[in-house]
Amino acid sequence: MSTGKDGRHKQSRHIRLTSHPEGQGPDGVPAIHWGAASAAERGPVIGTTTNRSQRNVIGAHSGSYGVYRALAVAAGTLLKDHKADLTNTSPTDVIGPNPQWAGAEKIVSIDPWGASVADVFSDYIAQGYDIRPTIAVTKAHINLPEIHHALAFKRLVPDNRILLENGSAVVTKVAIEPVWWLPGVAKRFNVSESDLRRILFEETGGMYPELVTRSDFEVFLPPIGGQTLYIFGNPRDLANPDVTLTARVHDECNGSDVFGSDICTCRPYLTHAIEECVRGAQTGGVGLIAYSRKEGRALGEVTKFLVYNARKRQVGGDSADKYFLRTECVAGVQDMRFQELMPDVLHWLGIRTIHRLVSMSNDKYRAITDSGIEVEERVKIPEELVPEDAQVEIEAKIAAGYYTDGTVPDADALAGTKGRGFDK
Amino acid sequence: MSTGKDGRHKQSRHIRLTSHPEGQGPDGVPAIHWGAASAAERGPVIGTTTNRSQRNVIGAHSGSYGVYRALAVAAGTLLKDHKADLTNTSPTDVIGPNPQWAGAEKIVSIDPWGASVADVFSDYIAQGYDIRPTIAVTKAHINLPEIHHALAFKRLVPDNRILLENGSAVVTKVAIEPVWWLPGVAKRFNVSESDLRRILFEETGGMYPELVTRSDFEVFLPPIGGQTLYIFGNPRDLANPDVTLTARVHDECNGSDVFGSDICTCRPYLTHAIEECVRGAQTGGVGLIAYSRKEGRALGEVTKFLVYNARKRQVGGDSADKYFLRTECVAGVQDMRFQELMPDVLHWLGIRTIHRLVSMSNDKYRAITDSGIEVEERVKIPEELVPEDAQVEIEAKIAAGYYTDGTVPDADALAGTKGRGFDK
Repeated sequence: MSTGKDGRHKQSRHIRLTSHPEGQGPDGVPAIHWGAASAAERGPVIGTTTNRSQRNVIGAHSGSYGVYRALAVAAGTLLKDHKADLTNTSPTDVIGPNPQWAGAEKIVSIDPWGASVADVFSDYIAQGYDIRPTIAVTKAHINLPEIHHALAFKRLVPDNRILLENGSAVVTKVAIEPVWWLPGVAKRFNVSESDLRRILFEETGGMYPELVTRSDFEVFLPPIGGQTLYIFGNPRDLANPDVTLTARVHDECNGSDVFGSDICTCRPYLTHAIEECVRGAQTGGVGLIAYSRKEGRALGEVTKFLVYNARKRQVGGDSADKYFLRTECVAGVQDMRFQELMPDVLHWLGIRTIHRLVSMSNDKYRAITDSGIEVEERVKIPEELVPEDAQVEIEAKIAAGYYTDGTVPDADALAGTKGRGFDK
Repeated sequence: MSTGKDGRHKQSRHIRLTSHPEGQGPDGVPAIHWGAASAAERGPVIGTTTNRSQRNVIGAHSGSYGVYRALAVAAGTLLKDHKADLTNTSPTDVIGPNPQWAGAEKIVSIDPWGASVADVFSDYIAQGYDIRPTIAVTKAHINLPEIHHALAFKRLVPDNRILLENGSAVVTKVAIEPVWWLPGVAKRFNVSESDLRRILFEETGGMYPELVTRSDFEVFLPPIGGQTLYIFGNPRDLANPDVTLTARVHDECNGSDVFGSDICTCRPYLTHAIEECVRGAQTGGVGLIAYSRKEGRALGEVTKFLVYNARKRQVGGDSADKYFLRTECVAGVQDMRFQELMPDVLHWLGIRTIHRLVSMSNDKYRAITDSGIEVEERVKIPEELVPEDAQVEIEAKIAAGYYTDGTVPDADALAGTKGRGFDK
C-alpha cells in the first residue's frame, strides 16, 4: 500500500480487492445463466458489497447512486452491513414473466427478474444471500399543467378511472436500474466481448479492472442512470397485441423536461405523448412512457451547453444545416444514446406491437422494429407545440431521416431555418 | 490476462492499466495544487483517456456519461483520439474568479476553473494536453406553464428583460460536472482521506483501484450526475451582497419535477421558486436555482419506489409519523444527499448572502450557513401549492426540523396526517 507524503494515506487496514478470486470462485456463489427460462435456472444477480464472497457480478447496485451509498458508509451514516428490509415493497402490479424473458436475445441490459427477487429468490434470501431488487413497481397520481390545459380545452374529459376530476392521471410507475449481460451487450454492438470489456475499462480511465480480469463474471452493474416507465391503464395489456398501445420512448432533457427551455421539443413532445396515452387508455387501450436518463444524447449536459454556444455563435448563426455538425465537432459523434439497448424494456413488458409510436426518431423506430416489435402508426409532434427556437432542431432531424408526413427540407430550406442569437 | 472457458475472453492486446506508474509519474504531468489562488498555480485537471500519460486524476470526464463515451468507442462510432473542438464554446457569461476559489476550504467538489480551461490553460492546450471543460455556461429562454399561470393571474408582469411577453424567462444556464478533491471531501465528512478512499473503492464493489493505489492523485472525477444552475438577472450580481438574491437549491425528483407526481412538493416548490426568482430579478435583484442530480435523496429511484410501497401498505396506511422510518428500513438511512458538498457551487458563484432562501430544509440551511454564507429570510412553499397526498411528507419534515412560521405538528397530529392508499 502506498504512503502519502504526509503519511496520511498509509493504509492501516487490509484492502479487499474484489478481483481476488479467493473465496468467491464458482464454489458457493450462485451462477447466472442469462436467458434461462425460469428464475431458478437463471439464478440471482448479487451485487452486494456487504458480503463480498456472495458477489457474482461486476459493479454495484443503484447505478451511479452506488457512489453516494459508499459516501454514506464513509461518513458513518450507513452501516456497511445494513440489509434492506423489503417488507411491503413488492410490486403493486406483476409484470411477466413474458416469453421474451427467455433466450438471451431480447433482453441484455436489464434483469427481467429484478422486480420479483424477494419472491423468486426467497430460498437464497433465507440462506442469507443479500439480493436486492433492481426494479421497483408502484402506483401514482400525476398532475401536469399541460393535462389541465387539455381538460380546459376539452381535448380530454375525466373518466374517474384513467383521468380524475382534479386533472390527475392514474399510473403504474416502474423504476429500472441497468444490469448489463456483457456477452449480449457486445453482440448488440457487433464487437467482441473481450474488446467491449477492455474498452469499457480503458476509456473510463480504469473503472473496474474486473471487466478484464474476471471473464467468469458476465454481468456488469454500470454506474449510469436507469429508466422509469409510466403505464396508463392495465400493465398486463401491454403484452396483448390486440389492445391498442400508445407509446413514447423519451430520453432525458432536463433543460426542457423540467425547465421548459425553448431550444428543443422535448417537454412539449413528452406532454403531448402523455395526453395521447391518457386518451388511448380511456378508449380501451393502454399507454406507456419509457423515460431514459440519457441527458443531451448521453453526452451529458456540459457537452450539450458547449454545443449550444458553438451553434449560436458560428458564422451565419444557428441554422438547421449545421445542427449535427456542431455536436460532432465538440463531442466527436452526433449521438451516444445507443438505441440498440432501448427495446429491452419493451420486451420485458411483453410488447409485440406498438400501435401508435409517439416519436419521429428514425433511430428509435429502427431499433424497435429491428428487435422484432411491429410499429403501426408514427405520431408527429403537432406543429403548434414546436417552440420557435426549436425549428432548427426539428428541421435538421427531419432532413436527417426523422419521420414526417410533410415536406423534407432541402439544403436551401435547412440553411434558411435560423435560431435565435444570444443578443435576442 | 485471464482466458474465458470458451477462449473468447483472451486478450490479444496489451491492457494499459492506468494504475501503472510508468510514464505518468510526477515527471511531465502537470501537478494540481488545489486551492491555489491562480489557475497557473493550481494547474489543469486532466482526465483524458486519449493520452493516458497526461492524466493527473482518477476517473473520467462527464460524470456517469463517461460510460456511454466508452461504449461509443467500443461500438466504433467515436474515435478514441477525438479531441474536442472548443471553437465558440466559451462561457456566455464570465463567472469569477472569486475570492472563495482560493484556499481549498470553500470549494472541494467542483473545479472553479472548469469553465475557462480553454482560456486559462491555453498554454498547456497548445502543448498538446487534452484539457476539457467541466463547466459550461450558456443562455436560454425557459417557458413554463406555471409562469404562464402567474402571468394570467397578474402575479407576474412581463418586463421584456427578465420576463418576455410570450411568457419566456431569460436565463443564464450553467452545467457543472463533479470534480472531487479527495482530501477536502474527506475533511467535510470528518473522515480520514485514506478511509474515504478505501471505502469508496470497497463499497462500490471495486471501482477505481487507483483510489487506494495512487495517493499522489488527489482529484477524482466520480461517475455521478452533476448540477445545473439557472440564473435570473446579471450573474455578476450573485457575488454582490448588496443585490438581493433569491435562491433555491433543489434536488432532482424526476417523478414530480417532470411528471407531476402528487406525493411530494418538489415541482410546485421549484416552480414557485422560479416565480420568486423572476420577481426578484425584475425588482433589481438576482435569482438562482441550483439543481442537483440526487434522485430520491440520492438513494436512486428504485429505492424510492420501494419506500413508496412500504409507506402505502404499512399497517394503518401512509402516515406522517412513519415517513422517515420506512426509508430507513429499506435504505438504512433517511437521506444520502450530503448537503455538506452542496454549498461549493454557491461559493463558486461568489455568494456571501442569500437574502431569500426558497427552501424549508434544515439540512440545506445548516450546510449553507455553516459554510459561512448568511441567510436572511426563508421562504415557505405556499400552502395552496402542496398537493393533498404530499401532506404526509411536508408535515413529517416540519416535525423533523424543516422551517415553518406556523405550528409544528405533535405526535398525535403526525399520526393523524394520512396519505392515499393504493385502492383510491
